Amino acid sequence: MNDKSSNISKRRRTARAKDNADYVAKRAEVLRAAAALFKQQGFHSTRLVDVAREAGLDRATIYYYAGSKEELLQDIVGGVLDTAIAAAEELRANAALTGMQRLHHIFVTLMASYEENYPATFVYIQEQMHQVGVQETEWAQAMMKRTRLFDRMLIDFIQEGIDEGDLRSDIPPRLHENALFGMLNWTHRWFVPGGGLTGYQVAESFWSIYTGGALTDAGRARMRTPLVLSAVTG
Amino acid sequence: MNDKSSNISKRRRTARAKDNADYVAKRAEVLRAAAALFKQQGFHSTRLVDVAREAGLDRATIYYYAGSKEELLQDIVGGVLDTAIAAAEELRANAALTGMQRLHHIFVTLMASYEENYPATFVYIQEQMHQVGVQETEWAQAMMKRTRLFDRMLIDFIQEGIDEGDLRSDIPPRLHENALFGMLNWTHRWFVPGGGLTGYQVAESFWSIYTGGALTDAGRARMRTPLVLSAVTG
Repeated sequence: MNDKSSNISKRRRTARAKDNADYVAKRAEVLRAAAALFKQQGFHSTRLVDVAREAGLDRATIYYYAGSKEELLQDIVGGVLDTAIAAAEELRANAALTGMQRLHHIFVTLMASYEENYPATFVYIQEQMHQVGVQETEWAQAMMKRTRLFDRMLIDFIQEGIDEGDLRSDIPPRLHENALFGMLNWTHRWFVPGGGLTGYQVAESFWSIYTGGALTDAGRARMRTPLVLSAVTG
Repeated sequence: MNDKSSNISKRRRTARAKDNADYVAKRAEVLRAAAALFKQQGFHSTRLVDVAREAGLDRATIYYYAGSKEELLQDIVGGVLDTAIAAAEELRANAALTGMQRLHHIFVTLMASYEENYPATFVYIQEQMHQVGVQETEWAQAMMKRTRLFDRMLIDFIQEGIDEGDLRSDIPPRLHENALFGMLNWTHRWFVPGGGLTGYQVAESFWSIYTGGALTDAGRARMRTPLVLSAVTG
């Protein structure tokens, strides 16, 4: 229990249930303050009292808006996922687009969103994402449900790419997805915003490798001769 | 402290320092028993006493060979890395090979090794790999040093591929590496040995996407016309 008292925890729940506009606005401000601090000094060195100060609240009042910094992180990440789902739904609804255009756009959007909401997104992928499937909290179950919904849309875009003749059909849709989004998800172990490359540059480089391959035209011609691995192993 | 007594911990250190052949052979047997149990029932549900029984040792004697199951896991993973380094060194020494052949072979070898040593490799990537850079234990520092050595060889193979005209030079070597090995490393979140695909099939599919791209010939021709993302965003 991160709450200072169960009384304020009760008042917090009541305020949320009432859908009070002032409360909602102030809480959004608390979320922005938390996101800014996480970015500035990291998630693990940020305390809830720092968030309070940043949002202009005192030590006691912050608990009226948030039970813990983990709760704020979860809200930020939930918001990122909601935004991604909304973007995918918009792409799906746009009849002028091909599956490949939808896939490209959502891929670049995700990387930009990862960078924009860093390090909350980093902490989520590193520490929480693999646990939402087994955790039974309300948040974890809602995340799992929305992750599945988002995942289904990605697979649909890939299937469209295959049906429209753009993507190779000898690779199952799930492997296409794991190859493309595996490159992106693994960035959490090496990509830090503000380094040499922007998230956009990384995403476009990966997209160009995923679609066109890493070979030059000359390399492509040479690769048509199959590699003889026996020369290595035997 | 996982040791039952500091006395047996002292005896263990002495036995190792002496480089006793019987001790080394018995400890190798303990490692094999641990690997088999981790595979069979998972790392977290395996206790050191289970490893003792599997290796034909009693509860007390196992501590003569291993201080904890974490130590056994670290030894297994260290062995995997050593084997990978030896394979890369052999590939590097074989003057008949191109950079692309070296890269291909080490990529497939790594995935096979991941599968073969699962779940020790899984636990390492999920829980330990990202911490070896900051931990100060002797094991973590040795792993970091060997990881850097291995990483250097991968970058060299990629640079050879670029220099030999096979790999695109518009993508920096580090991005080539993160794209290719990112696909592979992310498999720890979705690939479970014994499912529908073997590690070899996954590795070869990813290799074919990395080298040749995920597009069909028709898709490749269409993609030469740049995507108009403004149709999506505007």
